[in-house]
Amino acid sequence: MGYAILSTWKMSFQGVCEASCLLKDHASAGDAAVRCIQCTEDNPAFVSVGYGGLPDENGRVFLDGGFMDGDTLKFGAVGALEGFRSPVAIARSLKDSNFNNFLVGKGAEAYAEAAGFEKRDNLTPESRARYLKDKGKTQNLFSYDGHDTICALALDENGSMCAGVSTSGLYLKKAGRLGDSPVIGSGFYADSAIGAAAATGVGEEIMKGVLSFRAVMYLRSGMTPMQAAETAVRELKEDLANRLGRTSSISLIVLGNDGTFGVGTTIEFPFAYASDTEPPTLYLANAGSDGRTVITRVEDPATVTQD
Amino acid sequence: MGYAILSTWKMSFQGVCEASCLLKDHASAGDAAVRCIQCTEDNPAFVSVGYGGLPDENGRVFLDGGFMDGDTLKFGAVGALEGFRSPVAIARSLKDSNFNNFLVGKGAEAYAEAAGFEKRDNLTPESRARYLKDKGKTQNLFSYDGHDTICALALDENGSMCAGVSTSGLYLKKAGRLGDSPVIGSGFYADSAIGAAAATGVGEEIMKGVLSFRAVMYLRSGMTPMQAAETAVRELKEDLANRLGRTSSISLIVLGNDGTFGVGTTIEFPFAYASDTEPPTLYLANAGSDGRTVITRVEDPATVTQD
Repeated sequence: MGYAILSTWKMSFQGVCEASCLLKDHASAGDAAVRCIQCTEDNPAFVSVGYGGLPDENGRVFLDGGFMDGDTLKFGAVGALEGFRSPVAIARSLKDSNFNNFLVGKGAEAYAEAAGFEKRDNLTPESRARYLKDKGKTQNLFSYDGHDTICALALDENGSMCAGVSTSGLYLKKAGRLGDSPVIGSGFYADSAIGAAAATGVGEEIMKGVLSFRAVMYLRSGMTPMQAAETAVRELKEDLANRLGRTSSISLIVLGNDGTFGVGTTIEFPFAYASDTEPPTLYLANAGSDGRTVITRVEDPATVTQD
Repeated sequence: MGYAILSTWKMSFQGVCEASCLLKDHASAGDAAVRCIQCTEDNPAFVSVGYGGLPDENGRVFLDGGFMDGDTLKFGAVGALEGFRSPVAIARSLKDSNFNNFLVGKGAEAYAEAAGFEKRDNLTPESRARYLKDKGKTQNLFSYDGHDTICALALDENGSMCAGVSTSGLYLKKAGRLGDSPVIGSGFYADSAIGAAAATGVGEEIMKGVLSFRAVMYLRSGMTPMQAAETAVRELKEDLANRLGRTSSISLIVLGNDGTFGVGTTIEFPFAYASDTEPPTLYLANAGSDGRTVITRVEDPATVTQD
């Protein structure tokens, strides 16, 4: 059986390369997805995830992460976590408990420390400088342009699937704010018998549509990954327009259990993909007419300016 | 148009009585649902919600709550909140922000205090005594028998629907643990154009199936509230059995936008309902054969021993 890895934003490209090598070497979907995400968590050039992440209203970097094993439906999640290297790895470890899979704040930090996870101060000088420049802007919150949650969906040669996510969340967020990323169903979902999905963009809007699980339900009803992603994003976009009169930045990746992918988006959205039949490739997705997604292969990554 | 209120467990009966009076007097669905829930939050006889709630592993009472407005899909949620009277009221107030709708821990407490919500020490002498007796049992966690999350689904005469939930969560939970209650899609969901659903039971299992949103998706596809509730619970029950070899305590209430209700459950589960055509009534639901739910009207509430 083939393997595949699908991940959000240009910043995921290096991670997709490393994950696809792991998958080729018979690694599990979980190991591949976590490696993919950690490449971004550890790189301070990517300012919305992990090291060098976006600070909250008080200038502190709090991270969220989630992980779901599609074979068992076991999941783990952490939110409002300060001072650790890899929220996705901590989330993954939490899935193995029968209870207490979703931990936040000081409790999550106590768990991570007791479990021996690597600590790290994620507030870099650059994070702090950005905060000091922008801290008065909390009345006009926005997603940091062109950066957002790293999500990875993986399928391994045994047919096992998983979903992983990691983010520092909304820039200048309120203390204790959780977005969609640690919220199963909204930020991520995986079922090896069907497929997997994960979302990036404005978490508060993504949660209104329970976007990832919605797409997996559509996969289950027989849609292709592309149809499921397009339909889920189009429905949420229409709901936000009709009920709240607003638009929002929302992107969704979907991986079928045959390794094919789909994307839905309201904005220009780069993503990376690799499989046993395709080398790591950067794509650009745009919202087309009638809720369809227009996907183009990026020949020269330097032409994609946003991470 | 008619009104209806549907709520979980015998402990909700008084709240359903008060909520139905409000709805008859033209109150909004939101005001009715919050009143329904606050009756339980404020009553220390009900040990899994609000005042006198179940302590965590450290003997402290942390509360979770959620609220969703079915007209706008706006929602609010709080988790790991200590020292306040009504998590559902705080959650409801959070829905009015465009961002930062889901707050946890110290950030949630800072918000609630700044917003002027009533503070309360929810650890009663009875809560503390229970903790001291049971605190060694964290290796063998269980839902406290016969008590659990209070959920309320309301439909008002204008056709507006909402969902509200409140709980102290799993008994002896780890610090910082969130269950399904503050998690949109799993613990609650409401869409006035379709219907509403909310869940009670083992939150970690409910989240694996994103149970409330699943039921609302089935309503949307044309199922009745009873079919949607039965189908959603049956699917999750089968997934848990097939993939993890286990059963779990799970109950789900569903309210259609015509005011009719449905229930799915894996255990004996009392619930309360009232509408413009039916006085407040206590029912008992049991899992029947073939995933159907058997519902009986309780003539004498004293015969239902669990709250």
